[in-house]
Amino acid sequence: MKRSGLAFAAVLLVCNLALAQTGAVGPVRDFRTQSEHRLLSDFVRFLAMPNVASDTVNIRRNADHLVAEMQKRGLKPQLLEAADNKVPPVVYGEWITPGATKTVIFYAHYDGQPTEAADWSGSKPWEPVLRTASLEKGGKIIPFPKAGEKIDPEWRIYARSASDDKAGVFAILSAFDALIAKGIKPTVNIKFFFEGEEEAGSPNLREILTKHKELLKADAFIVCDGPVHQSGRKQVVFGVRGDVNVDLTVYGAVRPLHSGHYGNWSPNPAMTLARLLASMKDADGNVTIKGWNDDVEPLGPVEIAAIREAPRYDEEIKKQLGIARTEGSGKSLLDLINLPSLNINGFKSGDVGEQARNVIPTTATTVLDLRLVKGNDHIRQVAKLRRHIESQGFYVIDRDPTPDERLKHPLIAKFIHIPGSYNAQRTKMDLPISLSVIKAVEAASAEPVVRMPSLGGSLPLSIITETLDGVPTISVPIANHDNNQHAENENIRLQNLWDGIEIFASLMTMK
Amino acid sequence: MKRSGLAFAAVLLVCNLALAQTGAVGPVRDFRTQSEHRLLSDFVRFLAMPNVASDTVNIRRNADHLVAEMQKRGLKPQLLEAADNKVPPVVYGEWITPGATKTVIFYAHYDGQPTEAADWSGSKPWEPVLRTASLEKGGKIIPFPKAGEKIDPEWRIYARSASDDKAGVFAILSAFDALIAKGIKPTVNIKFFFEGEEEAGSPNLREILTKHKELLKADAFIVCDGPVHQSGRKQVVFGVRGDVNVDLTVYGAVRPLHSGHYGNWSPNPAMTLARLLASMKDADGNVTIKGWNDDVEPLGPVEIAAIREAPRYDEEIKKQLGIARTEGSGKSLLDLINLPSLNINGFKSGDVGEQARNVIPTTATTVLDLRLVKGNDHIRQVAKLRRHIESQGFYVIDRDPTPDERLKHPLIAKFIHIPGSYNAQRTKMDLPISLSVIKAVEAASAEPVVRMPSLGGSLPLSIITETLDGVPTISVPIANHDNNQHAENENIRLQNLWDGIEIFASLMTMK
Repeated sequence: MKRSGLAFAAVLLVCNLALAQTGAVGPVRDFRTQSEHRLLSDFVRFLAMPNVASDTVNIRRNADHLVAEMQKRGLKPQLLEAADNKVPPVVYGEWITPGATKTVIFYAHYDGQPTEAADWSGSKPWEPVLRTASLEKGGKIIPFPKAGEKIDPEWRIYARSASDDKAGVFAILSAFDALIAKGIKPTVNIKFFFEGEEEAGSPNLREILTKHKELLKADAFIVCDGPVHQSGRKQVVFGVRGDVNVDLTVYGAVRPLHSGHYGNWSPNPAMTLARLLASMKDADGNVTIKGWNDDVEPLGPVEIAAIREAPRYDEEIKKQLGIARTEGSGKSLLDLINLPSLNINGFKSGDVGEQARNVIPTTATTVLDLRLVKGNDHIRQVAKLRRHIESQGFYVIDRDPTPDERLKHPLIAKFIHIPGSYNAQRTKMDLPISLSVIKAVEAASAEPVVRMPSLGGSLPLSIITETLDGVPTISVPIANHDNNQHAENENIRLQNLWDGIEIFASLMTMK
Repeated sequence: MKRSGLAFAAVLLVCNLALAQTGAVGPVRDFRTQSEHRLLSDFVRFLAMPNVASDTVNIRRNADHLVAEMQKRGLKPQLLEAADNKVPPVVYGEWITPGATKTVIFYAHYDGQPTEAADWSGSKPWEPVLRTASLEKGGKIIPFPKAGEKIDPEWRIYARSASDDKAGVFAILSAFDALIAKGIKPTVNIKFFFEGEEEAGSPNLREILTKHKELLKADAFIVCDGPVHQSGRKQVVFGVRGDVNVDLTVYGAVRPLHSGHYGNWSPNPAMTLARLLASMKDADGNVTIKGWNDDVEPLGPVEIAAIREAPRYDEEIKKQLGIARTEGSGKSLLDLINLPSLNINGFKSGDVGEQARNVIPTTATTVLDLRLVKGNDHIRQVAKLRRHIESQGFYVIDRDPTPDERLKHPLIAKFIHIPGSYNAQRTKMDLPISLSVIKAVEAASAEPVVRMPSLGGSLPLSIITETLDGVPTISVPIANHDNNQHAENENIRLQNLWDGIEIFASLMTMK
């Protein structure tokens, strides 16, 4: 009895462990392997709908398609729209799980980046094709498989939004299908939130969220967008950096001058701007603007540990990129993306190459990109930059100078804070919901999951948190890292799509 | 006797003074006033011939026309050609004055800058028109005057090369005509040298000069090109600056990077170049490159005095140009053009404005313009710049780096010394020939003549001096300063053309 009792307990323990590791993943995988042909053809039909946000007719077709898909599943779809009802709506649906104590919003977007068909190689953006491998590795176009033919998970679908982000929409809906098909009850209330203008900069997101605040109450906002880690390992990302752009113009004489007749007497704006920019960083690439890092909310020990455990790719990337030395006094890329940055996107004064002439240009212009981390405020960070420019002796204005101003101020900078800036967002990695999400993704992964406190890149997730009473946002990307996101020849590797279904089924059944 | 002797001496003295002040000018002015209608129609016929150096058929028509004009005058014309005989020839002629002890070459060029007819206002480049004043001052097009109608010297002819530099060719030939017509014997042997590809950069000048070195022996090379002083006063210019262009490119990663994912880790080439350029000048705009001014041959007391006596236009120009502060620690423009300069013609990295994106650019490129003064050597000056860049830690090469070099050197600069650079040329203002030229121009001028040790701009006059055994070159410009040289709506004020005839007649009869 004791023995059998022990044996029984041992069996139970093994079962529990198996469940903890794989949860819904096993049955969901069965569902997928049984349904691959149908999944593939459904996804391709979805990808064949042109989906640029400004293409009002077609973007509405995508929304209608999603409404119909949600209706089939009993998800009570509705369109969440901004005041004018003209912009691409959010397609919203929900599934209430009796007894569930948590509500999770699953976010993806159904619009895609504009693209020129002529830039694509051998296929067109909204006429999906199947390739045997990536284009870069010589993948050939093959017909879509007939019933009964084997489907190779290394195959890739080439189409606009194949990865970014119809893969997210499709994986989320298919994960739900798999659970229902296998009789597995979700553990959370599910709210589906599919945006239709993310690639247009989400101009109406704040308004839509505010308008439907009650409807959108949730314990977490899980974003499926972007690629998995470069190593191929799955990853959970707890933050994004904020983003600000500033246009800066400095001035020379009112007309281009002969560089022989006036050179080194009349001020050269390219040199003026070069000196100004050089004052913003030291030789090691550290920003020297006063108080630049002062507001930074330090990473906690869990975040620091996660960075330490993440794969180190610095030396590998340096080789790929042809870089002998990096900025930031030798700090690693993963450390540096947790600091605010200052980057020159462009610098233009006069002409170079064939167009170059012996002149003193009239102006020099640069576009700066400021990335922010948790603790920074976009308005405050811009003010630091502006104060720095003033401290260098510049008269700073937000328009071209008048003739009188030109004669009065030796150094003048036109400083334009480009609209659309926003703060960083970072969810603590040791919140219960954070731990649950990590566990759920781990359950769908054979390898350790990479946990990132923040991406280097930016998404306006702070808008979501600010509008929805501080809801934690967590990103769970599924696309292959070489998916050519935003560019021509966008693609998804089938295994990443299959994995995505398992990941989201696991998230829908998280503990 | 004594009294009458004294009176006679006094009369002689007055006559000598009158001759010293006006020389041939009075008779030449008579000739001109009597011939204005013919001079105008001859000049307009000359201007109607398209004269871009690369337009082989038309440029040859101009050369043939000049040969015919010289033949009429008995100037024994010949074409001086480069080896392939295909480039626009120099049209050469000569007039030997028995007993003359000096030989003077009179230089002008008959080719003009390329131009787009569509850019002109109300007329076309090679269909000369007459205006009542400058276009900018509302000058209206009027018919060319019929015989007997008065000609207003403020009228302007609008056509390509009206000033630059068919005015020079025409004034020189007409000055000779006037002397012959009035029976005034030149005091010097005259060599006419009319170049046909100056605006194309004189690529064959050195070869032609070398080939015809014996023929071109002379005591002075007088160049008629460019405008008189901004004040309207006539000027004699004893030098030009040398000129060098350098293209400089620095490198970031091999491909454009997302500024969020990689910013402030992967080096930004625009910042690298900004820092490098900022290292080349101090806050007052003085060049800080080691030894930059070391070779400068100091101005002599005569040159310094001439600069002191020249009209001061700094404050006036600053107002016109909208400049509150100049470079060079407050030194005047006239002082600064007698120092070597370093000017940024252009700076380009990534994009600004509508095209700007959040990327780290792959390269940053600048075009530098180095002006040289007497004493500088163009090869040596470029070497100083290159050594400075090396001293800033750069690996300097003359091509794009290899992948291995990128991984080995943190800072790489591609340094291209653009072909076609040349040294400054400056003739001492107190040489006997210099004094003679000043005197001759003064004799044709009611106002004091501006004497400039050097222009800020550049011409390859050093090639002439180097090739022709150190012959002194002196520039005597005649065009109005607002002649729109090189641009659309080029023009000459008739009075400047008339003055030019007097100036060159005075030079041909100089003592």
